[in-house]
Amino acid sequence: MAMEGFKSAPLPTIRRIPVYLRVLEEMQEEGQEWASATDVATRLDLKPIQVRKDMAFTGLAGVPKRGFKVDELISAIRDFLGWDKPTDAFLVGAGALGSALMGFAGFKDHGLNIVAAFDTASEKLGTTIHGKEILDLTRFKELAQRMHIEMGIITAPAVSAQRIADLMVEAGIKGIWNFSPVPIKVPDDVAVQREDLSVGLAVLSVKLSSLSPEK
Amino acid sequence: MAMEGFKSAPLPTIRRIPVYLRVLEEMQEEGQEWASATDVATRLDLKPIQVRKDMAFTGLAGVPKRGFKVDELISAIRDFLGWDKPTDAFLVGAGALGSALMGFAGFKDHGLNIVAAFDTASEKLGTTIHGKEILDLTRFKELAQRMHIEMGIITAPAVSAQRIADLMVEAGIKGIWNFSPVPIKVPDDVAVQREDLSVGLAVLSVKLSSLSPEK
Repeated sequence: MAMEGFKSAPLPTIRRIPVYLRVLEEMQEEGQEWASATDVATRLDLKPIQVRKDMAFTGLAGVPKRGFKVDELISAIRDFLGWDKPTDAFLVGAGALGSALMGFAGFKDHGLNIVAAFDTASEKLGTTIHGKEILDLTRFKELAQRMHIEMGIITAPAVSAQRIADLMVEAGIKGIWNFSPVPIKVPDDVAVQREDLSVGLAVLSVKLSSLSPEK
Repeated sequence: MAMEGFKSAPLPTIRRIPVYLRVLEEMQEEGQEWASATDVATRLDLKPIQVRKDMAFTGLAGVPKRGFKVDELISAIRDFLGWDKPTDAFLVGAGALGSALMGFAGFKDHGLNIVAAFDTASEKLGTTIHGKEILDLTRFKELAQRMHIEMGIITAPAVSAQRIADLMVEAGIKGIWNFSPVPIKVPDDVAVQREDLSVGLAVLSVKLSSLSPEK
C-alpha cells in the first residue's frame, strides 16, 4: 500500500504530507508543472528546509532549481498514503457526526469509501443517509468478513465505544478511526487513530486564555 | 480564564488534560472520592509518572497514598480549560459538518455555546438547525461585535476559509477553530486550532499499511 521510504517517516512529517498534497493539487489546477520545496513552503508559511526534509521521504529526486514535477510528486504522495486505491470502511453510529462523515465528499479523494453504516437504534434501521441504508449492528461481523472490510469508523457515544471496537477486532478490522470521546484498547496488530474534538477545543481554550490580557 | 500554572503546560500535557477530565468524571459518577495518578494512569493505560507530572500543573497538592479529591481536581481542570464559564461562538458554514457540530450536546459540558450559524447560500437562510436560525454572513460582523463574540468556528469549504477568517478577525474574534481543509493566516493576537480530518486519515492509512504483511 505505501512506499517503503515513507513508512519510516516521523509522525510530524506524516501529518504535513496531506497538507502538501492539497497545495500541490492547487498548483496542478493552476497549470504549474514544477514545484520546489520553497514554492510549497511559501504557500504554507513553513520553512523551506522543513519541506525539503519531508519531501526527501518520497524517494523522488528533485531537479536543481526546478524542484519536482508536480504530477509525479502528487502520485508519489497519494501512493504513500494509499489514497490511490480506495479503502472500504464500515461506520458504526449513525448520529449527527456519523451522518456528516458519510456526507463528506472529500473522503473519496482521500481513498476512503464508507460503504455501510450500522446502528442499534431500531428507528434508524432501514432509513438511508446520503443514499446508504443504516444496517443493524448485529450484521456487522458477517458483512465485514464477507466484504473483507479492513477499516472501521466509530462515531458512537463513549459508553459503547469499547464494545464496538471489540466487535470490529473480532470481525477482522485492521484500522479503527475513533471519533468517540474515549480511548479504546485493541490488540497490537490493529491501528487506531483517535479524533477527539474536546482535545482540539482544550488546546484552543488554553491558547485563547493565554492571549487575553486579563491576569 | 485559566490558572497561571497551567498556561505554561506543554502542548502534550494540554492534550491529555481533557482525557483526564473524562476519567475523573467517570470516577465521580461511580462515587469515588479520591483519585491517585496511578488510578488515572491505569484507566488510560498510561505511565503513572506521566500522569503525576501532568497533574502537577494543576497546582493542587495531592495527599500521600490517597491522591487528589476528585471534586477538587475536576474543578481545577475545568477552571484551567475555561470550561466553567461558557464561551459563546459563531459558526460559519451550515453544511453537514456545521450541523453535526451544532447538534453535539457534549460541547455544553466543554464550555462552548454555539449561539448562531452563518452561511451565504440563500436557500439555507432563515431555516433552522437544532433550533438555531441560519443567518446571512453579511450580518456576522455587526452581530459579533454587538454580542462580544470571541470564538469563531469555520466549517466552510477550502475556497472561502481565508475570506471568512479575515472577516472573523475584523469582527474582533480572538480564537478560531478551523475545520476547513486549508490552513488560514491570522494576526499574532488571534489563536487558531485546526482540525483536519485528512491528517487523521493520513496517519491511520500509514499505520494500517505499516501493519499489513505485504511488502
